[in-house]
Amino acid sequence: MLQFPITRGDAGGATEGTFPSRVSERLAEFLSTARWEHIPADVRHEAKRSLMNFFATSLGGCKDAAVEKAAAVLGQFAGSATATIIGRSERSDPLNAAFLNAMSANVFDFDDTHARTIIHPTAPVAPALLALAETSHIAGQRLLLAFVLGVETECRVGNAISPGHYQRGWHITSTCGVFGAAAAVGSMLGLGGERMKWALGNASAQASGLVETLGSMAKSISVGNAARNGLVSALLAERDFFGPDQPLEGARGFLRVTGENPDFSCVTQGLGEHWEILCNAYKPYPCGVVLNPVIEACLELSKEPGLIVSEIERIELIGHPLLRERTDRMHVNSGREAQVSAQHGVAVALSRGRAGLAEFSDACVADPALRSLGSKVSFVDDASYALESARVTVHMRAGRPALTRFVEKARGSSERPLSDAELEDKLRDLVQYGASGCEPEPLIRAIWSLERADDAGSLMPLAAGRGLTRPASS
Amino acid sequence: MLQFPITRGDAGGATEGTFPSRVSERLAEFLSTARWEHIPADVRHEAKRSLMNFFATSLGGCKDAAVEKAAAVLGQFAGSATATIIGRSERSDPLNAAFLNAMSANVFDFDDTHARTIIHPTAPVAPALLALAETSHIAGQRLLLAFVLGVETECRVGNAISPGHYQRGWHITSTCGVFGAAAAVGSMLGLGGERMKWALGNASAQASGLVETLGSMAKSISVGNAARNGLVSALLAERDFFGPDQPLEGARGFLRVTGENPDFSCVTQGLGEHWEILCNAYKPYPCGVVLNPVIEACLELSKEPGLIVSEIERIELIGHPLLRERTDRMHVNSGREAQVSAQHGVAVALSRGRAGLAEFSDACVADPALRSLGSKVSFVDDASYALESARVTVHMRAGRPALTRFVEKARGSSERPLSDAELEDKLRDLVQYGASGCEPEPLIRAIWSLERADDAGSLMPLAAGRGLTRPASS
Repeated sequence: MLQFPITRGDAGGATEGTFPSRVSERLAEFLSTARWEHIPADVRHEAKRSLMNFFATSLGGCKDAAVEKAAAVLGQFAGSATATIIGRSERSDPLNAAFLNAMSANVFDFDDTHARTIIHPTAPVAPALLALAETSHIAGQRLLLAFVLGVETECRVGNAISPGHYQRGWHITSTCGVFGAAAAVGSMLGLGGERMKWALGNASAQASGLVETLGSMAKSISVGNAARNGLVSALLAERDFFGPDQPLEGARGFLRVTGENPDFSCVTQGLGEHWEILCNAYKPYPCGVVLNPVIEACLELSKEPGLIVSEIERIELIGHPLLRERTDRMHVNSGREAQVSAQHGVAVALSRGRAGLAEFSDACVADPALRSLGSKVSFVDDASYALESARVTVHMRAGRPALTRFVEKARGSSERPLSDAELEDKLRDLVQYGASGCEPEPLIRAIWSLERADDAGSLMPLAAGRGLTRPASS
Repeated sequence: MLQFPITRGDAGGATEGTFPSRVSERLAEFLSTARWEHIPADVRHEAKRSLMNFFATSLGGCKDAAVEKAAAVLGQFAGSATATIIGRSERSDPLNAAFLNAMSANVFDFDDTHARTIIHPTAPVAPALLALAETSHIAGQRLLLAFVLGVETECRVGNAISPGHYQRGWHITSTCGVFGAAAAVGSMLGLGGERMKWALGNASAQASGLVETLGSMAKSISVGNAARNGLVSALLAERDFFGPDQPLEGARGFLRVTGENPDFSCVTQGLGEHWEILCNAYKPYPCGVVLNPVIEACLELSKEPGLIVSEIERIELIGHPLLRERTDRMHVNSGREAQVSAQHGVAVALSRGRAGLAEFSDACVADPALRSLGSKVSFVDDASYALESARVTVHMRAGRPALTRFVEKARGSSERPLSDAELEDKLRDLVQYGASGCEPEPLIRAIWSLERADDAGSLMPLAAGRGLTRPASS
């Protein structure tokens, strides 16, 4: 269609007086002039924690059926196999590797979460950078800087349109992630301000992903595309493939088209002073975050000598009403549904004393004993509870004393984040689960020392699979 | 993000009583059961006319700077070179070829137009089919059937959300085109109803493209992606990579998220009875369609012996107010802007007697004589004029008689479509312009006889470039 000036009926604040000035340009200028020396120590460290969690979840997801199928289909069209597919023994071209690595990192929704937007920040950004780093020679500091800037970009773009954007049905990790990946790669390529703006503009043409796809494999396509297409956006911009002047704030730009009343100041205010990556959080369990305190309480209760699973009469959950609204799912048929079922989470955590990916697999869900135990769960709404708090009370039969546990601030919440050691353990656990044959210890060491690495791409072969197959399928 | 049930504030008709029933499923069922024998003769013929126009514009756009840059960047990552890039001598993998061929077909906005939605229907659909056909052995009838179904799908999806979708800022050719490409490829692969629904679901995760990018190279990314990603969507679905149940009508599905009050009946009503491709139109000039009657009048006036360009005093255009609103652009600086400038169009058509791509190039726009002549244009609004009508009156100096021409139904309008012979000529002209070295006659013959072809993919080598470079750059 040719470019005609169109008057939009509901201009919503787009009158001349309030028209935001140069949002894309100012963001691009910041991105193209930011330097490693500007990045505070806590931000640098959080970047490495995010990458630890990224490799963990990607190594856990690397053999999921969606990843297997996508690798098979896209592999037919792949170019030179110069880039690592995390947890797998075959390699691929960098675009395809970026796609698949983003997919595996996010496929179980066990990756990181930026609370204000519910963006999973790392899955779109890190794979784009790592695929390019593997075929170039990029210092660790340069990759880490680019990563911090990519996360900053996607979260700020998301802040400007939250919560309406997700509520309307946009899969925000995908739609905003492509901007993050483009900005990150643009930084690593050393793009100047104008080309950086074009990278954002090329990303704006590719922002997609619907909440409707959650629970299906199709969700993973938009997450993979965010990484791949962000990389493409910046590579095109580097060759002067130009985008619009105002991809974010324009009358038909991303923020107005996909947001209701965008707050443009979220994109530019306090750039370089406040860092969004410091709001990143890592999940202890592969579940909806509102289940965190419930699972934690159940894991603790499972260790109590007085807990005899066969004698449980009923289990009462007290929590914020959202706990019930979002997780009261008695009959679930897949591991994916189980991730948002309090009944399944409670049953498996109490009876097995574990709550990892294996406990939220299709096979586990089919266990009749867990279904029976889950049917004993009841909810009590208490709006005075915070979302990260819950009480679980297990009532026993035949006069045995009830057991109860209150968790005020669940592990994995912003006030009780996973420690560095817990993140390492998450990676070790997920390496085990993914059965890639990858050795966790050299990878863990390399992530913590990334800022001293001369060649950031050397990380990737450490995360490759060793050609093993899963015990279950061998 | 995990799948939580979210209550959308503005459900806009999504109450239970009016909830549309099985829109995606019914569309998929139609697509998977449609047969060549069901396709009426006029529809079959229109499909070939659309392909004629497609090859014409793609051969004209094949060396545009955006295509050159994208080919260079993406070529680095391309797989086996099994597919033709139209008008170019290098080949690429089918996904990349689909991307580039969609881009070149649409880059000048000289491709076809579906009036109700302003979708350019062929650019996303044909390249996906042709790239796959070239690496399989597909009969011409099967490709034509798939093409008709792809166009049907994208136009019906677009109808359901028009005109609000485009007005909000969605580049509808791209956003709906990916559904068309997925449906078309799904048909050619012989997908059953459920897999066809998944193909649509995989497409729903990839629908993107913003009006803000028009006038920049970034527009071509979303058009290319529509073809490439539609192809990927169907290939994934073939391997049971599954999407959501209601990608179109779901509460967070494509139609509700990107449309205001979607009319779901547009998708399914009269399937197999009414064919959208019969509403397809082909442009005689590479301009905004409202300029068609003006250009036609000027081309006729240019042949009048009484017209002496140096003696023109002023030029009056009478037309529907939209003519002025959309094309009153005195000072344009690029060929792209010139496509929607009445001043430039009038000046070049009157003084050169031609209105092809060369007359809307950057070089042509820079001609000071044209700028001077264009400055003599004035507009008279007359709401009684139809959009396809206009009157042009040229007033001459020194007592010479004025010349005037009224065009009631412009060439290229639905009531005066380009003839088959005119479409052939358009292809010949654009082959010349694109300087690919492609021979037009064998290609023209092969398009007209496509339904008798045993191997539809054999079309593509006929449209390849012969390694020539453009005279201008040689």
